[in-house]
Amino acid sequence: MQTLDAARGAKTASTKLAALPLSVRNAALLDIADALRADKDAIFAANVLDMAAAASLPDPLLKRLKYDEHKLSESVDELRALASLPDPLNRTLAATQLADDLELYKVSCPIGVIGTIFESRPDALVQIAALCLKTGNAVLLKGGSEAMNTNRALFAAIAKAAGLPSGWAALLESREDVTAMLGLDKYISLLIPRGSGAFVKYIMNGTRIPVLGHAEGLCHVYVDDAADITMAASIVRDSKLQYPAVCNAVETLLVHRDIARRALPVILASMPECEFRGDAAARDIIGCSPATDSDWDAEYLDRVLSVRVVPDIDAAIAHINGHGSGHTDAIVTSSRISAARFMNEVDSADVFWNASTRFADGYRFGLGAEVGVSTSRIHARGPVGMEGLTAYKYKLIGAGHTVGGFADGTYTYVHQGFDGVCPV
Amino acid sequence: MQTLDAARGAKTASTKLAALPLSVRNAALLDIADALRADKDAIFAANVLDMAAAASLPDPLLKRLKYDEHKLSESVDELRALASLPDPLNRTLAATQLADDLELYKVSCPIGVIGTIFESRPDALVQIAALCLKTGNAVLLKGGSEAMNTNRALFAAIAKAAGLPSGWAALLESREDVTAMLGLDKYISLLIPRGSGAFVKYIMNGTRIPVLGHAEGLCHVYVDDAADITMAASIVRDSKLQYPAVCNAVETLLVHRDIARRALPVILASMPECEFRGDAAARDIIGCSPATDSDWDAEYLDRVLSVRVVPDIDAAIAHINGHGSGHTDAIVTSSRISAARFMNEVDSADVFWNASTRFADGYRFGLGAEVGVSTSRIHARGPVGMEGLTAYKYKLIGAGHTVGGFADGTYTYVHQGFDGVCPV
Repeated sequence: MQTLDAARGAKTASTKLAALPLSVRNAALLDIADALRADKDAIFAANVLDMAAAASLPDPLLKRLKYDEHKLSESVDELRALASLPDPLNRTLAATQLADDLELYKVSCPIGVIGTIFESRPDALVQIAALCLKTGNAVLLKGGSEAMNTNRALFAAIAKAAGLPSGWAALLESREDVTAMLGLDKYISLLIPRGSGAFVKYIMNGTRIPVLGHAEGLCHVYVDDAADITMAASIVRDSKLQYPAVCNAVETLLVHRDIARRALPVILASMPECEFRGDAAARDIIGCSPATDSDWDAEYLDRVLSVRVVPDIDAAIAHINGHGSGHTDAIVTSSRISAARFMNEVDSADVFWNASTRFADGYRFGLGAEVGVSTSRIHARGPVGMEGLTAYKYKLIGAGHTVGGFADGTYTYVHQGFDGVCPV
Repeated sequence: MQTLDAARGAKTASTKLAALPLSVRNAALLDIADALRADKDAIFAANVLDMAAAASLPDPLLKRLKYDEHKLSESVDELRALASLPDPLNRTLAATQLADDLELYKVSCPIGVIGTIFESRPDALVQIAALCLKTGNAVLLKGGSEAMNTNRALFAAIAKAAGLPSGWAALLESREDVTAMLGLDKYISLLIPRGSGAFVKYIMNGTRIPVLGHAEGLCHVYVDDAADITMAASIVRDSKLQYPAVCNAVETLLVHRDIARRALPVILASMPECEFRGDAAARDIIGCSPATDSDWDAEYLDRVLSVRVVPDIDAAIAHINGHGSGHTDAIVTSSRISAARFMNEVDSADVFWNASTRFADGYRFGLGAEVGVSTSRIHARGPVGMEGLTAYKYKLIGAGHTVGGFADGTYTYVHQGFDGVCPV
């Protein structure tokens, strides 16, 4: 019942949180930054316990689990930066005069209760709690069990923020809490999982609550027959090798057959540290190892690239829409017509023309804080900033207006948009 | 397998549809209008068959099932009006200069495949298909079985639209199709059910696909202690009696205890045709029949109003957030402070100040075409216009930019928003 209680408490807190002025939310963010600094010995001691218990885990996991002076400084900087950002709430998105003295405002507001579930990284707990606070959302935080002690210490600091309704943030710790959260669509309006693709897929497949995230980043670069080959090689290299282990790295290279014989050797030569797996036509040109059917659906997250020679842009688009994950796909071409076709017909969150897939990122996009990258078409798509943690409501202000008054001619609709800010 | 085939076909068609220029989509809308006129004898003959088979159904259902010259004129007018509206697609929602020659555009685009499921009304089939076409979405249309012949005749007219990818619209007819659709989240990105609350709830509870709609409209009017009593009576009367059978009619009246003794008799007197069910305090004043616990959760859709006297605005807000459906709630007050608290703390799509709940409607809001009213917090909330059938994608245009080029200082981020329209 603990999860249910936390969710109910968060739901109750969420309506109070929604009404808090920006000054209170910002002060609370700075409180948390101060509390992290004040509690740092306890936090680091807790992290030492977690690190010791996890000593047998692989190095990359241990690196993520580590919460030290450096990570703490990052958390504090993020909190202060968030406190200085403009209010994502109470923004008037549209204003319409419906009739004399009857004004309709579409106003940004919090979503309600956000459920977050993440593996290992304790710094994510601070970051997500802070983003939810700034956007007026209550939050359920389920951290990885291997970070339990660190999470408790960090949560104790978060809980010191003043002026917030009790229950606005709750720490959940057990695997059963995850299962329970997935069924609490009555209280939780959005889930944000952070972790491996398999983990996110498990969450997405197990709940009716909308999920903000992506289970897979199977990105493509298509080198059109009208491509500059030097540019193509540079973009493919950057997309694959600048950071192979991330979701916006390219996994499959598609090359137009009329340029393949000239382009592929140049691309191959620019990436000696990468394994190429080609279809028959690609192997015929660069003599790489063969790609099997499963390679077109593989997210390697490694220095491996599958290569396919396609007869035309239609085949490239069909391949991407059939095998891609709707994350990020790029075309290299000097043809505006090809670029327009690719960008309009490839059904992905991000479609790039003559740029590396690695740009698919909230910070590079200039969104400020990044909540995640979404491959959903609903609500938020692609890299998501704080806007992804907000909804909107309609505020209508009248002077006793009735619908009957329009039927009998007392009032007349004007439906005139205007520049205005909702007064309440 | 028929549903799956239709969904796959729609998915394939959807990427082609997304790339069609406005002129083709508008011409297709006018084609459908012409085809409806040309096929009208066949359509009316089909409707006569359906009406005869349904002769034993209640009158309101028969009225909805009827598709005659009047309904056809409405369909044709709607199609022509839609064809004259501006393009909801390819709108540049934001433009950001990321660096020299590297420009990011957030551009509106279709969602993909919309699944629609509706009871009886055959005119809804034309309306939804037209809205999907205007917004570049492929659509699966599951009509009510009692309208089968009419739906087939109407769909034949819809299928005559020229220039559209085959499979962009498909008619589904069986109850098994509904069950199948609910599981096709791989192909269908949004479900729009139209029908009774129980029907919508069944859809919402049976799928992981996002649902645009509302299962319930349990709306409240709260009469604050600072209310003008004449205005309060007028608003309550309009909210309840102007059209009691619809989702935006009020079901529960909350009255501040300091004004109850003066306000309730005036409200009661203005609504002699309405049954009042009150709590003890209300009964003490107006001697109505008693409200039981279940009355606070009842959507009467009839000339019945439950009445509760509350000690303060906090109790009113708590009652609404606890018993409401997040649809539409109104406050009557002359106090700006009370209005602001109510509008910010009541967690509903529409919060109204001194106006009837009956204004919660896409046409009254000036949204043009109404897709539905949503009580979800994600994607679209409240009355939803064509915008609710669109998503967005990010288009990034570079000149060979790599992320590595920023790391080594070749480029520098500027992240400057600008007024511009995406060129592709």
